[in-house]
Formats: sequence, structure tokens, C-alpha cells
Amino acid sequence: MTRSILQSLKVIFKTDVRVFVYPSSATGAWEAALTNTLSPGDRVLLFEHGFFAFKWARVAERLGLTVDLVPGDWRVGLDAGALRERLAADPDHLIKAVLVVHNETSTGVTTRIPPLRGAMDEIGHPALLMVDAVSSLAATDLQHDGWGIDVTVSGSQKALMLPPGLSFTAVSEKALQASTNAALPRSYWDWGDMVRFNDNGFFPYTPATNLLYGLREAAAMLEEEGLERAFARHARHAEATRRAVDAWGLENVALNANEYSNAATSVFVPDGSDADHLRRIILDRFDMSLGKGLGQLEGRVFRIGHLGDLNDLTLAGTLAGVEMGLRAAGVPHRAGGAQLACEFLSDIPLENDG
Amino acid sequence: MTRSILQSLKVIFKTDVRVFVYPSSATGAWEAALTNTLSPGDRVLLFEHGFFAFKWARVAERLGLTVDLVPGDWRVGLDAGALRERLAADPDHLIKAVLVVHNETSTGVTTRIPPLRGAMDEIGHPALLMVDAVSSLAATDLQHDGWGIDVTVSGSQKALMLPPGLSFTAVSEKALQASTNAALPRSYWDWGDMVRFNDNGFFPYTPATNLLYGLREAAAMLEEEGLERAFARHARHAEATRRAVDAWGLENVALNANEYSNAATSVFVPDGSDADHLRRIILDRFDMSLGKGLGQLEGRVFRIGHLGDLNDLTLAGTLAGVEMGLRAAGVPHRAGGAQLACEFLSDIPLENDG
Amino acid sequence: MTRSILQSLKVIFKTDVRVFVYPSSATGAWEAALTNTLSPGDRVLLFEHGFFAFKWARVAERLGLTVDLVPGDWRVGLDAGALRERLAADPDHLIKAVLVVHNETSTGVTTRIPPLRGAMDEIGHPALLMVDAVSSLAATDLQHDGWGIDVTVSGSQKALMLPPGLSFTAVSEKALQASTNAALPRSYWDWGDMVRFNDNGFFPYTPATNLLYGLREAAAMLEEEGLERAFARHARHAEATRRAVDAWGLENVALNANEYSNAATSVFVPDGSDADHLRRIILDRFDMSLGKGLGQLEGRVFRIGHLGDLNDLTLAGTLAGVEMGLRAAGVPHRAGGAQLACEFLSDIPLENDG
Amino acid sequence: MTRSILQSLKVIFKTDVRVFVYPSSATGAWEAALTNTLSPGDRVLLFEHGFFAFKWARVAERLGLTVDLVPGDWRVGLDAGALRERLAADPDHLIKAVLVVHNETSTGVTTRIPPLRGAMDEIGHPALLMVDAVSSLAATDLQHDGWGIDVTVSGSQKALMLPPGLSFTAVSEKALQASTNAALPRSYWDWGDMVRFNDNGFFPYTPATNLLYGLREAAAMLEEEGLERAFARHARHAEATRRAVDAWGLENVALNANEYSNAATSVFVPDGSDADHLRRIILDRFDMSLGKGLGQLEGRVFRIGHLGDLNDLTLAGTLAGVEMGLRAAGVPHRAGGAQLACEFLSDIPLENDG
Repeated sequence: MTRSILQSLKVIFKTDVRVFVYPSSATGAWEAALTNTLSPGDRVLLFEHGFFAFKWARVAERLGLTVDLVPGDWRVGLDAGALRERLAADPDHLIKAVLVVHNETSTGVTTRIPPLRGAMDEIGHPALLMVDAVSSLAATDLQHDGWGIDVTVSGSQKALMLPPGLSFTAVSEKALQASTNAALPRSYWDWGDMVRFNDNGFFPYTPATNLLYGLREAAAMLEEEGLERAFARHARHAEATRRAVDAWGLENVALNANEYSNAATSVFVPDGSDADHLRRIILDRFDMSLGKGLGQLEGRVFRIGHLGDLNDLTLAGTLAGVEMGLRAAGVPHRAGGAQLACEFLSDIPLENDG
Repeated sequence: MTRSILQSLKVIFKTDVRVFVYPSSATGAWEAALTNTLSPGDRVLLFEHGFFAFKWARVAERLGLTVDLVPGDWRVGLDAGALRERLAADPDHLIKAVLVVHNETSTGVTTRIPPLRGAMDEIGHPALLMVDAVSSLAATDLQHDGWGIDVTVSGSQKALMLPPGLSFTAVSEKALQASTNAALPRSYWDWGDMVRFNDNGFFPYTPATNLLYGLREAAAMLEEEGLERAFARHARHAEATRRAVDAWGLENVALNANEYSNAATSVFVPDGSDADHLRRIILDRFDMSLGKGLGQLEGRVFRIGHLGDLNDLTLAGTLAGVEMGLRAAGVPHRAGGAQLACEFLSDIPLENDG
Repeated sequence: MTRSILQSLKVIFKTDVRVFVYPSSATGAWEAALTNTLSPGDRVLLFEHGFFAFKWARVAERLGLTVDLVPGDWRVGLDAGALRERLAADPDHLIKAVLVVHNETSTGVTTRIPPLRGAMDEIGHPALLMVDAVSSLAATDLQHDGWGIDVTVSGSQKALMLPPGLSFTAVSEKALQASTNAALPRSYWDWGDMVRFNDNGFFPYTPATNLLYGLREAAAMLEEEGLERAFARHARHAEATRRAVDAWGLENVALNANEYSNAATSVFVPDGSDADHLRRIILDRFDMSLGKGLGQLEGRVFRIGHLGDLNDLTLAGTLAGVEMGLRAAGVPHRAGGAQLACEFLSDIPLENDG
Repeated sequence: MTRSILQSLKVIFKTDVRVFVYPSSATGAWEAALTNTLSPGDRVLLFEHGFFAFKWARVAERLGLTVDLVPGDWRVGLDAGALRERLAADPDHLIKAVLVVHNETSTGVTTRIPPLRGAMDEIGHPALLMVDAVSSLAATDLQHDGWGIDVTVSGSQKALMLPPGLSFTAVSEKALQASTNAALPRSYWDWGDMVRFNDNGFFPYTPATNLLYGLREAAAMLEEEGLERAFARHARHAEATRRAVDAWGLENVALNANEYSNAATSVFVPDGSDADHLRRIILDRFDMSLGKGLGQLEGRVFRIGHLGDLNDLTLAGTLAGVEMGLRAAGVPHRAGGAQLACEFLSDIPLENDG
């Protein structure tokens, strides 16, 4: 069973190298990515485009790494030009790793990875490219090998539709090679042990067996639907959601159309309104829990998740609930967004999306 | 456990006499009502106001009873005047039982029971009053004792939110008395055995144990919510549904406002449209199964159920799905019904309904 | 799904004709067998070889049939000679049906059916042969067609390993033919409706859907194991149980080795001991519920079930529990029965049983 | 919910200080214990009395600690005299922590903790006392506060009867104090974050929610049974198991009666027999999986677990299965051990154990 689970994860990460599974939250997979490839004091580069980029930087600091955290605009993704500029300013290659959040759950902004890899290759910078795919894996395209990612980390509880408790790390040959010299202390997260045990069909310590059974089911469901079709379904629901948001006259946090997230949409409430009051009304009255604004967006933003095991009617109910909540909470908006989204879903079936 | 389950059913039926539980579909409880109280050739009176009245008449015929099935308009409930007239024309009291469907699932029409009892009392006719409460129990008020019903039959799979496989029969003292002389052969359905075994905390034969456990949970959930509050919740969702239907410009099968069903609404499609085509589109595209038109309503009607474990968002999703289906199937209608229903739900919380 | 379930039941009953499924206890299937084939006052023949034969006779009486209940010895099965004699004494063929319990759960005696059919054929008596296979189906060989049975009734909760709530009736062409003239009133149990609806993939009324899903699983498990292999497994566990009983110095209710039940073994406690006291000790101390002595065996007998989803270790634990109970309750016995049974199970694997 | 779960863990660990919960295997809790209290190069002392002591030493080494691993006899627990001697030889208090496995799952030997604390106090050595209670928690008495333990680590999948995926760390005030100066890098395992978030009813990152629900149930079950009563039940089953082992003429790995484990018994097969062959036979023939010999015991030992949700009959079935396996595999032994264990269980009810 171990082997077949690891194999199906390789399909989902689109890699031929290796994926490791930890009994841990996704936060643990961040730590695994760093401790296996880096040494104390090594420099890592992050751009703060959202809450989770900031959190990952904190983890790196605590582990004894030197963190270059470049301030940034939370409403856009990481720009390849900015990355190139920073790396070009590091001719001695002190920067050992670039850490990027693929889909920022906090903002609903998806950074395009291939241009980043392009920039790194262009100037020949050897830093490892590490990507947080916690909320993008299985919801939007991600090509670990094809995009030249060195370490991709993700978890069980988003588009894989499982309870939390498992994390994943896909690695490149270069990252595996780096792990042989990396001097950060590690035991639980050690890839070497993982390789040795996995190759015999085992784990180095007791795995979270019941979650692994769930993972097998989730992988089978994804295989049945087809990965590309699952992406199209998420894209369609994201588009319907944005149409509702526009019709309500509310503002999407994400500024660039080519960075809209398949997984979640973050929405500003109008000035003078309290997003958390709205969220509380919706929870109390309609038993629906929306994501809160994180970090600098606290109180100004609510987040609509549209990932996982969602169909058109579930999304229709979700958007109706938001509109009912806007009305009940007295948040200024134009009525009709949910209806418009439904009309979109009704007119454009999934089959025609491709 | 037997005793506590029977006790909670008495609360739900609002009776102090007895409720029997059969491992059977609700159809079996019809049969139990008749075989325990009547003798071969006995005359029973029914008014055909819908599909299930007609089906019950068929059961009575097969059991060897003489059935007076009075044709009627499916769009209205049974009128006390019509009943009085019929019974007045039976001075010899040949009619031994009057069989009434409380809520006609096929039409969304709820017959008011108390006026019927009033009519029977007024002219002093001794026939037993039997009520089918399969789709009304726990969704709308029903008072077995208070309304002078002799036999109320129901089942597990509607507002009690259980899988099918259990049926219930609440009885009056008069019905129990009638069972001592009733000559229709019976064994499985026999009340005498039920009384004897139930009084010792058992059933006369192996009960459907896992459904009984479910029933215990369902009864606890109803008790927690409160019966009257559950009725109000159903009434509110029924009202929201009717507002959507009106806004779509479609016609409710039920004609009289005081007979609107708490449990389900039946809706005519416009002439020239095919209700079953619409239902198929909604099933294929949006994975939602609507009830079909039954009997004389086949192809002309679709039915929206709004009973059981439903909250505002589930109903919003349901109505959105209907509107999306109307659009996708090209059924002439005005857009906006689902939105109007949501606005109603948003403006009038359950707490203010009472 | 309806069709595939009905088809797998035909495999289990070894019939090419029809099997009907009722949402009811197995008691209901008795009633179905009788009401569909017989008319008021018809004579049926039963031999009282146990508690359930007696109960079935009671059902027949209540339905208005004339019952010839021949007293018999509970420790043996129905003898073909006795049947032939009785039928030979009925030259006018007033007896319309012979009712036989295949495996008497109360005694652990299995009546061999083929000799009975042989006796009926030999003297050319046209009565229907009806067989209660409630506790034999799937635990011991039963050939509805091959043995010339007209109606076989069974239920969900024994060797099919399901919760109670479903009953089954396999019928012969002759029985179906009889149903066209049978005058006993019937509606819920009516085969005619069943045929009409089943042929379209439906049931005449709401089926117990969740139990049907379970039935599908149980049939798949049986198919995977193989019916004959399941019989061998049951036979092996029955033999191990009898070896334990013998070693304890206790007496099996079943007298004839060729009538030992695959499904359950009934055991006398020694004179002066109270079987129900023993059962209570075993329940209180070891959390295991043994069957009680039924009817004339009350207090003198305990019953060990060895059917369903049982493996060697479960049986070993069961027999150890009985021996521990005998010791704890002070019932005179020789120690070592459970060990002997384990040695038998250890020495003779299932593979060599065939 | 967070608070009530943490509170019930404090009851189970018998501490008034704090318990932390990680989404990880128990191995992770070892790492948490070390990284939060120690600095690179710090010296820790372990005595190798079994496989898990050895594994813990490996974790400490990998994290950059200096490990004094004292070789020892796997058949006995850690002796207070040996500990005192070692600590007395460290007048400069270079040893910062003593790491002890309470119950060695590999050997079935339980080290008594209070004498160790006594020895440390006697010579006034300030090292932290860390105890692995993975397989002892809830199966045998453990008093985090009462015994003066500084860090106790455990996991979800042993006597708490949960799937693997959660680990626990109980800490003393002294350990919390040490964490403020400990310089080992840490992020995922950091107690500081745990304290801050737990105090607000949260976790620092997504917890393994479904396992937390299970933990709540397990804690409720333990509370209902009573901790001391659960210990007595385990002790009784351990005693029954040892009686069977003795009767078989086999040798317990554990040498000292006051170190016998409540949770598991490790048994040598006779010279010339292969424990893994025996285990395979038992798995194939009787579908029971016994623990394998670990480390130096590989092939020579099988392990019988008797912890968790076990009652007398389950244990009886387990021991019968072992004896059946010994017989089927041709391992030399005397018959009758399972029976003797059953007689013990039958004669000495749990109530009289206290």
C-alpha cells in the first residue's frame, strides 16, 4: 500500500522523483523542506505577498536560517522581474533557496511559477526553488518536474478533501543531493530515513494509517475525475464566484486576472463595514463558516473557499449564503450576484470549459 | 430501549394511547390500520385528492374491503362539507372507516383534519377516522389525540430523517377496541401481539434494530429542536419556496393558501414544457433529484421537497438549482425566484416566525 | 441496482425462477409465502420439531388456514417416512402445503429436504413444499430449484451478516401459478405487484434502501469467498463446537449426526443446573450473549451460534468464553473442551475440509 | 474543545502543569522533548535496555546532542543504582537530561520510575528526567507530577485506542523553564508557540482535527472506566498471558517479576524455532498479527500485546490463537496454556483484583 500511495502522489505532483509523506500538519512539511537542504545561517529569499509567505519566513528564522524577506504588495503575486533583480544582486550565490507560496490562501492570489524558474535559469542562480502548494495542489495546475521546482510542500486537508494530519514533500534530484550536505539538525523530517524505509515499502516510524487509507480513496477519486478536469471544475467555480463578487459591487483582493486563484477568493468589505461582523452573522444565521482576513487584512476581508468536493449546487448555496449574509448584516452591496453566478453556471457547463 | 423509543413516538404523535412500530415500509402501516380494525366486506370511504389516497384505496380493495372512492379535485384538500354529506347519506353506518391523507406528497396539499372530525361528530357517525401522516409527521402539526384521530400511520424516511424500513401506527382506544372484533386475517400486523410484547419491552418478532437506534437519535434531535420549532422551520422554508415559484411565474398545484404543505411543493411547468425533461436536466447537470409528477400529474409537475434536516443554505442551493435547471432546460420562466426566496430568508429569521 | 441484487439472491438461493425482497422481518416472509399461495380454510401440514415450526403454525392459523400440526421429537428432524405416511392418508389432496423448517435454530437440528421432496413425489401428492431457511441460507447447502422447493423464506440477519429488516422469498413456477388463484387477502406481500415492479427495476413501495446497500456488500463478500467454501467454513466451526461440547461432557440437543446444524449448536446443561443462570454469568462476566432455550427447552439449554462472519479465533474465543462461564457458574463439566476444539482447528485447516 | 481535551490529557498524565498535543507520530514527541530543552552538544544519558531506548538515542544524536548510551541487558529495566553511579561520576553536571523508556514494547519490561527520581534527588543531579510513556500511558500507572518527571512523551495509538497521528508531551515547570534557554533550533515543535496558542484555545497550526475528536471519545471512555480500573484490567490480562506462557514452557523476555509489563509480553521461542515463521503461520492461518522481535531479539521473540480495548474473551481468543499457532507451526511447547489462562480469568474477576 505504501508504494501505491507514493506512486499516486507522484502523479498528483507531476514528478518522477520522490514524494515523502509525514504524519504532520503542512507546517511540518515547510520545516522538512528547509532542514533537509540547508545549513545553519544559510540565506533564504522570500517575498511577502501574503500571510503564509510571512509565516514561512518565521519558520526559517526559527530554524536558524538568515531570511531575506522582501516586503511586497499582498494584492499581486511574486513577479519574475523582482526575483531576477534580487538574485542578480547576489553574485556570490549566498542565497541558497527561494521560497514561494504558489497560491496565497490569505489573498486568493496565485503566483505563476514558470516565469520564476525562467528568471533563475536566465541568470544562472543555483538557489533551490521551493514552492508551498498547500492550497493549490489538485485545485490548479502544478508541475513539480516540468516547472523545475526543487521542493514542493503540501498537505492533506485542502483539495485532497482529507482531514488534516498528513503533509507531503516532493523533491528534485538536486534537492536530494543538497540533503547530503545540509547541516541543519533533523531526525523526524529526515529524507534519508524516508528514502531507505520507503524503498522497502515502509515508513521510518508509525504512519497515520487511517489518513493514508483516506488518501488512497482521495487519489482514486481524483484519478477517476481526471486531474485536468478537476482543475477546470475549480476554475469554473472560481469564475462564478468572481462574477458574484463583481455583481455585488465588492472588490476582489487579487488585482491581476492572470493571478486569480482557483481555490479561494478574498473579498474586501466596503469601508465602514466589518468583515468579521459579517462572518459572524453568516455563521449564526446560516451555519456557514467563511475564512477570516489574515494579518494586515484582518477585519477588512472575508474569504470564500471553492475547492475540494464542490459541485455547482454547493457553490450556489455558498454564494446565496454570502448574499443573504450581506443583506442580513447590512453591508452595502448590489443584490443579484448569486443569481448571476448561477446563470453563468447554468449557461456554461463544465464540458465546454476545456 | 423499546420503551423509551415508544415513549418518544407518543410525544411526536401527540398521543397518550399507543404507537406501534413495524419493520416495514409505510405501506405496511396502511395495511396494519385496516386489518386490525375491519372485517371482510366492511365499507371504507376515501376521497381521491391525490396519488396516495388512490393507492390506499387500492390496498383496501385488495384486502377485501368495499371501497367508496369519491372522485375529487387533486388541487384541493378534503372538504368537511363533502365528508358530512357522504356520511349523512349513510344512516345505517355501513361506512366503518374514513381514510384521509393528511399531506398529499403528490400535490403539496395538506388537508385540515379537525374540521373532518367536527363533521363526523356533528352528525354522530361512528366510523373510525384514519389518517396517513407519512409526509406530515414532524413537518407540520399533527395531534393524534387532540384531533380525535383513531389511527395515524407514518414512516421513518420523511421528516424523521431516517432511511426507509420502519413504519408507525398510533391508535385510539376506540381503534384498539375495534381490533378485538375485526375479522380480517392478520398475523404480522397484529396489534394484540404488539401490545403483549411491547408491554414487556420486546417486539413480537425481530425488529429492525439498527433503524431503531437511528430512530432514537432522530427523536432526540427533534426533542432538542422542539417540535413546534421544527414545524415553524418547515413552514418558513415552504413559504420561501412558494415565493420563488411565484416569482418564476410558475403555478403551484395547491390552490388554497390554508392547505399549502410544509413538506413539499408541487409545481406545474408551463404548457408545452416537459417536467420530466426538466428533472432529467437538473439531475444530470446539477446532481439534484426532484420528485416526479405522479398519476394524473405525470410529466406536468415537478416536486420540491423541503422537509427533514434542511437549513436555509440547503434550501437556497435547492432553489438555485431549480432556477438553473429551468434556464438550462429552456423552460419559460422569469429569473430571480431563488434570489427573492433568499431575501425572504434573510429578512425573516426563524426566531420571528412563531 | 434492484436487478443486480435480485440476481445475486438467485445465486444464493440456487434458483432460476424469482426471489422477492420485503422490507420486513423474516416472519413477514412466512406470511408472504402463505397469503400468496393459499385460500381461506386451506389445510397445511407441519411437524413440530422445534420452536419455529410451532411459531409458523401459529401464523398459518391466524391467517385463517387449517393447520395439521403433528407433534414430534424436538431432538430430530422431520423424517421422510412420517411425511409420506401423512400425505398418503390424504387421498383427496386436501393438504395444500407442507411447511418445513430447514434449520431449527432452537435445537440445532437440520432437516434434510431432498428425502421429503422424494416422499412427496413418490406418492404424487401435489401439496406445495415450503421451507424456512432463515438460519440455514448461506450457512449450509440449500438448493431451491434442485431440491424441488416451492417457496423458500429467509431473512437478512443470520448468515448474510446484515442487520434485521429484510426478508426474502424464493418461489417456484408452481408457486407463482398457485398465486393466481390464491384467495387469501394480501396487498403488502403480493407477489403480483412484486413481479410487475421488479421487472422494471423497482419495488412496489419504498424499499429499505440502506439495508439493500448492505445486502449488495454481503452478496459480494459471499461471492468472493465462494458459497461452497462458506458452507465448509461453517461445517468446520460446527464440528469444532461439537467436539468442545462432547469434551465438556455435555449433551447436544441434536441426536442424529446427519442432522447436526452448521449454524448453531444447542446444548443441555446437566440436570440441576440452570441454563439461564449460566447465560447471565457469561453475559455479565465476559460480555458474550448466548442464545436461550426456547419453548420446551427453556432453562435447560443454551445455544452457541457459529454462523456469519466468524473465523477460527472468534470461535476459539467463543468456546473459551463458554468454558470460562461453565467454570464461573459452577456447572458440572470436564475442562478442556475449548482446547480440544482449538487443536482440531489447528490440525485441520479449512483447505483440507472439502 | 481544545481546552477540554488538554484538560483530560492532564488527568491521564496526572499533571497540573501542561500537556502539548502534536499532529505527529510519537517519534515526533521525542524530538519535541529534546529540541525544547537542550542546546547543541548537550550531553544526554541513556541506558540501552531495549529497542526504543536505542532509537531514542539515535534521534538525540541526529539532533546534534552528545549521547552517552550505556549498554545494558535487554531483559531487565533500568536500575536506580546504575543511574546513580553514572550521575555521581558527573560532578560538573554535564549531563543535561536522562532519557528513560517506561515500558519497553520490545521486551515487555517496565522500568520503575520513582527509584530513578530518588537516585537523582539523592545525589542532587539537576539533569532533566525524560520518560517515554508511549506504550505505558493509560495501561499502567504513570504520575508525571508525583514521580517528578520533567518531560513525558506518548502517542495516540496504544492504550488510548486511537489511530496513530497524535503525540503528547507533558512537561514540568523546570522543563518549561529550560525551554527559554534551549538553543536547539525548533519551529514545529516549539513549546512557546504551543503555550501562546493553547492559552487562547487554539493550536499554532492546523491540528489533526478528526483525531482530536477521537481523543475526546477515548478520554471519555477512560474516565468512565476509571484510570485505576483500566490499570487493573491491563494487569489482570498481563498476568493471564504470563500464566499461559509459563504453561507452554516458554520463556518470558522480562526477567524480574516487578518489571513485568501491563501492556505487552515478549516471549522467546525455543532454540531451533523461528519466531517469524510462527508469526507468519498465525497470520496466514488465524488472521492474527503478533509483534515481531526487534533489534537483537529478531527471529527469537514474538510479542503478545494486551492493551487497549481488550476484554477477557478477546484475550482468550488471542491466547488460543497463539497456542493454535505453536501447534500448527510445530514449535515445541506444552499444550494447555490458553486453558490455564482462561481458568485464571474465570476464577479471579476484575472486581477482586484491586
